[in-house]
Amino acid sequence: MFAVTILGNNSALPAFDRHPTSQVVTIDEHLLLVDCGEGTQMQIAKYKIRRSKINHIFISHLHGDHYFGLIGLITSMGLLGRTQDLNLYAPASLKEIIDLQLKVADTTLPFALNFHPLNDEGIVVKENKFEVSCFPVYHRIECWGFRFKQIKPLRKINPEKTREHEVPSSFFERLKWGEDYINKDGNIIKNELVTTQAPKGKSYTYSADTKYDERIIEKVSGADLLYHEATYLKDLPERAEKRFHSTSVQAATIAKKAKVNKLILGHFSSKYESLKEFEDEAREVFPNTELAIEGVSYRV
Amino acid sequence: MFAVTILGNNSALPAFDRHPTSQVVTIDEHLLLVDCGEGTQMQIAKYKIRRSKINHIFISHLHGDHYFGLIGLITSMGLLGRTQDLNLYAPASLKEIIDLQLKVADTTLPFALNFHPLNDEGIVVKENKFEVSCFPVYHRIECWGFRFKQIKPLRKINPEKTREHEVPSSFFERLKWGEDYINKDGNIIKNELVTTQAPKGKSYTYSADTKYDERIIEKVSGADLLYHEATYLKDLPERAEKRFHSTSVQAATIAKKAKVNKLILGHFSSKYESLKEFEDEAREVFPNTELAIEGVSYRV
Repeated sequence: MFAVTILGNNSALPAFDRHPTSQVVTIDEHLLLVDCGEGTQMQIAKYKIRRSKINHIFISHLHGDHYFGLIGLITSMGLLGRTQDLNLYAPASLKEIIDLQLKVADTTLPFALNFHPLNDEGIVVKENKFEVSCFPVYHRIECWGFRFKQIKPLRKINPEKTREHEVPSSFFERLKWGEDYINKDGNIIKNELVTTQAPKGKSYTYSADTKYDERIIEKVSGADLLYHEATYLKDLPERAEKRFHSTSVQAATIAKKAKVNKLILGHFSSKYESLKEFEDEAREVFPNTELAIEGVSYRV
Repeated sequence: MFAVTILGNNSALPAFDRHPTSQVVTIDEHLLLVDCGEGTQMQIAKYKIRRSKINHIFISHLHGDHYFGLIGLITSMGLLGRTQDLNLYAPASLKEIIDLQLKVADTTLPFALNFHPLNDEGIVVKENKFEVSCFPVYHRIECWGFRFKQIKPLRKINPEKTREHEVPSSFFERLKWGEDYINKDGNIIKNELVTTQAPKGKSYTYSADTKYDERIIEKVSGADLLYHEATYLKDLPERAEKRFHSTSVQAATIAKKAKVNKLILGHFSSKYESLKEFEDEAREVFPNTELAIEGVSYRV
């Protein structure tokens, strides 16, 4: 299971019952929260996201529509009696804001909030089943994109062959990671004999808020799913450039040049009540495009 | 026109589609916002409150469920191109938080945000049609209640008498404030001859988050409408005391002892899905009680 659920797809000004940016990336039993605009905790409740499963939160940048909901979510987690650690990956100044807000409320969280400032491009967290790295994008202030990679076993068990060579199922996990098996007679059963090549882990790339910049292509290259912002329709490239945002066609161009498999568009300006044209315009450049719709999960 | 519209009636943890505390006090054309929990800007949009008419915001204390929505509301006002001043009355530390959040976003508001720290009991703002004063209540951290007083002319025109004494309508505004009229012959027409006593301006008192404390009685005494928090039902007075909150019956007792005209209850704990018992319990002590329901306006 590897999917992205949209909690907010709008730009800064909430409108038309669209909310500021937030997404949940599900990798098996792990939930990773990406950005956390105002109202995210209500969206989490509305879409029945299990907040106790969220152990990692990634904040791309410190414009309010990407983090004003974070302190509310964190304090609610405390009120609900959370005890397990929460890991927060964000621009450094966020720590100062959170510390100040907890201090004035005379609040001590009942769990450890581990703050990981984003400083350099590269891996920010690596666990058994996933790895997340960050890369710079091009916005008015410091802003980071995130690449979510599913870590999958290298090899797939061939049940017929493992039976034939009498490899016990207790050894299967090690087989999946490429080990050879030594049987009770001391003979080596080569891994390739009893397994086949497994499909590679997939990747989801979130390029946050950014103007059109071809340096991003390399960063998102080959992603199975790419989220790229599209604040404006294609007739407003100057406004997009000036405000460090992108248009529908610019997002699709990045997707095409980076040879991703699928594109989802979000961060729509409150100028637009209907979103249909975003899809139409992007699909002319990159057909496998969908709109990021709140409450919908997109499989990676 | 003097009314209170409830935008959020729940305690800290949003639940059952109830939101954290926020209210709008309407005095003729003036809208005064009282507390501003997360999501207030969405509630303002939902209930079609004209945010451009809000020039004064009062924050009782710095627990998140009373102010986490403020920075989002303020930045949205900026995005919407607001230019008129906004006055904010709040505990002093809030300024530091807002300044830091604007700084990290590299944002300059297009309007003046005038910060008025709450330090002493007394009048915090006085305008032509209203006056607001603050008083301390008894919560875990510094917390202020607010008294909203409508300022009304002292006298009411008697049309028959003004005609009889040939007082021109251009002088009526001055008559209402008690002035005598001097006619063209130099004769004094005493105010009492052409006016009658006007009804007094009414008052609404918001006692914020507080435990039961009889020192509050004097502060809210005689209010036409009192909002008092009732986080718990009457069977949990120890929990209420420990958490510096009140029960239904404690709120009603304050209302009764302070001889207010009407009581509204709010800040309900997320423990309770149904609120009916709050009303039932409070009415046994103080019959003229209503629940503060989101989207409903209560006339003062």
